[in-house]
Amino acid sequence: MRNLKLKIEYDGSNYCGWQVQSRRNNKKSIQETLEKKLCKILQEKIRLVVSGRTDAGVHAKAQVANFNTNSKISLDKLQRALNGLLPQDIAITGVEEVSSDFHSRFSAKSKIYRYVIVNRNYPSVFIREQAYFYSYPLNISRMKAEAGILLGKHDFKCFQAADKKDRSSLRTIKKLKITKANDLIHIDIEADGFLYNMVRNIAGTLIEIGRGRFPKGYMKKLLVSRNRKLAGPTVPACGLCLLKVRY
Amino acid sequence: MRNLKLKIEYDGSNYCGWQVQSRRNNKKSIQETLEKKLCKILQEKIRLVVSGRTDAGVHAKAQVANFNTNSKISLDKLQRALNGLLPQDIAITGVEEVSSDFHSRFSAKSKIYRYVIVNRNYPSVFIREQAYFYSYPLNISRMKAEAGILLGKHDFKCFQAADKKDRSSLRTIKKLKITKANDLIHIDIEADGFLYNMVRNIAGTLIEIGRGRFPKGYMKKLLVSRNRKLAGPTVPACGLCLLKVRY
Repeated sequence: MRNLKLKIEYDGSNYCGWQVQSRRNNKKSIQETLEKKLCKILQEKIRLVVSGRTDAGVHAKAQVANFNTNSKISLDKLQRALNGLLPQDIAITGVEEVSSDFHSRFSAKSKIYRYVIVNRNYPSVFIREQAYFYSYPLNISRMKAEAGILLGKHDFKCFQAADKKDRSSLRTIKKLKITKANDLIHIDIEADGFLYNMVRNIAGTLIEIGRGRFPKGYMKKLLVSRNRKLAGPTVPACGLCLLKVRY
Repeated sequence: MRNLKLKIEYDGSNYCGWQVQSRRNNKKSIQETLEKKLCKILQEKIRLVVSGRTDAGVHAKAQVANFNTNSKISLDKLQRALNGLLPQDIAITGVEEVSSDFHSRFSAKSKIYRYVIVNRNYPSVFIREQAYFYSYPLNISRMKAEAGILLGKHDFKCFQAADKKDRSSLRTIKKLKITKANDLIHIDIEADGFLYNMVRNIAGTLIEIGRGRFPKGYMKKLLVSRNRKLAGPTVPACGLCLLKVRY
């Protein structure tokens, strides 16, 4: 039995997310699309283990998933066959054979997500489905100053989707970088794990800070409060992209 | 009478080109889409003068067009109104009032086009409609070495679409830059003017050179031959983008 690891790039615009979630808008999931093609190529039922599900409309530059197979197909041939069969919005950027104990989710040390904002008075034509258009001018240095407090191990309950109850909302943010190039703002967050909607809620809060709705020192108070209602809104999925999974 | 100049960004994927050309696939033209919105806002019939038409499927980062109007609308208000009415794949990135003798085409000193190639063994998920996917490995230094001969004033008849007969096929290429970052190749060409399909034919020829189908010194012979049949194929429109018009 081999354990194969896939690196996957996808434009999530036309999917209900990594996994089927009550078939929103009758859209397919990335997982079922991939599993079907794997089954066709390998003539085996394949079950993918993913580093973490992404939500409807969220993108990935390098999602990771692994699966067990009896097939002896070469890695190169498998990649070419998959890319030949997959739709244009999903691509396999790497295939690797890994040890039997590799598990895409449990073996992951950290993940990096990017939230992309187009901050000017008209939307972007070319990345209209890979960015959140926000026209009100944002003060980047204010956002950076307040974001610093999030670094390290904290209870991030204030950024957890209200209807989700993970056992613990303790997570460690290893890096948080906000950059601006022309009208494009990137919020890159690396953490050992993410609560449901955590990045989109942090981004939404940083936007409120950047436009001046939340005063200086707000982020610290919010974190201590553990109260979701005090955070900013959950910004749209289209701006979010899973950049990298570290092992 | 005011003369207003628009800077326009568009994703050409869903259009028959700047101008109506016998209504290919029943797609709209960028020009008619813009003129309709202008007419709606200004309550006047508007006729746009463009720096140069782009073909079906070709994109623009900064197309330029101007028009005359009796309206006294502020430039800022006009931009916001247009961006509010235009579809998501067209955006007005600037509006300026110019002197009455400014003419988008005749006043232009040069234009810069970019041809984008994704050169790896699987297509790009995110720029699948803004790049040409070419899987065979290309030798960039060979492409650069042969491209140099195109600089300056030449008769570019060998790159002119076979069915087009411009009065003269003399043009001056001011700059030609080939760059590669990861799997992305950019061919940037600045010239005082372009023959029909000239950039796509040069890119197609450079690709043949990069993959080794044309020998060393071929570009020079091709240029002298003035024979379209000796050049490479016309590569797809999706890879082409009008980057800038200089005045």
